[in-house]
Amino acid sequence: MTTTTRPSILSLEDFVSHWQGHRALTRRVIEAFPEDQLFTFTAAPPMRPFGVMATEIHMVSEMTLGGLTGSDWSEPDWTAGPRSKSELLSTWDALSGRIAAEAPTADLAFFMRLHQLPWGEMTGWVAAIYAIDNEIHHRAQAYVYLRALGTEPPAFYER
Amino acid sequence: MTTTTRPSILSLEDFVSHWQGHRALTRRVIEAFPEDQLFTFTAAPPMRPFGVMATEIHMVSEMTLGGLTGSDWSEPDWTAGPRSKSELLSTWDALSGRIAAEAPTADLAFFMRLHQLPWGEMTGWVAAIYAIDNEIHHRAQAYVYLRALGTEPPAFYER
Repeated sequence: MTTTTRPSILSLEDFVSHWQGHRALTRRVIEAFPEDQLFTFTAAPPMRPFGVMATEIHMVSEMTLGGLTGSDWSEPDWTAGPRSKSELLSTWDALSGRIAAEAPTADLAFFMRLHQLPWGEMTGWVAAIYAIDNEIHHRAQAYVYLRALGTEPPAFYER
Repeated sequence: MTTTTRPSILSLEDFVSHWQGHRALTRRVIEAFPEDQLFTFTAAPPMRPFGVMATEIHMVSEMTLGGLTGSDWSEPDWTAGPRSKSELLSTWDALSGRIAAEAPTADLAFFMRLHQLPWGEMTGWVAAIYAIDNEIHHRAQAYVYLRALGTEPPAFYER
């Protein structure tokens, strides 16, 4: 495997901080939902409830950690996952703990190397940032859901 | 100024591609809006119309390019900016052209150095990725607006 040595524009530590900052914000958005709306409410059908999107975010994140630390991109069972707010939050916290412990041990060559994902071949950077972008995307939709429910969402700029 | 030499996990070229890919998608979202809804419609008051958010995205992006290429973080006039769909699209295209021409010339030390922005002191990486994250966040809200208007939004995974 090849690594390129040049002035670094992003450290692994800063990448992990970026990821965990977004995870902390998404956790606050999950918490802000009324329990009885999280897996049922949608502001614009046929869009999915945020609980379903958050479960997908969790699975993509777990898969990305598997790729980052062990080059394991096997697909999860997309139909499984948490079905209540408390179960979603505890699953979320467990994965944040694993990311904190495992992600800093990743081989830096991961990011520039090509990987075969279920949705195509791409570099580790593209795969990893896509997971975070997908989280930002669906969480932002939850901001509209919360506003439609009359709830003020957590501040976007706080991580 | 200090640069750290180590295996690179992100090149400037890949960062600029990441940014431009998101800009291309946001442009398609602007295009998908009916002209008479872009600056007026909101799916959940008090949220702003997407045209107003897109104008803010444009200004933050222009400011970020100024920081990236010339350490110039002076604030724009937030009350100015495009007021029609065609004006927004042409402003968008002009900035994409400037990013293509100017961003690749940035000093790589920008990313790890601290910068004083109107909203606080942060590294160039944090400032630059925040601009993109903010774009993803507000564009995703436009996906809900488009769904509420009965329009299928552009595919998120296409850049």
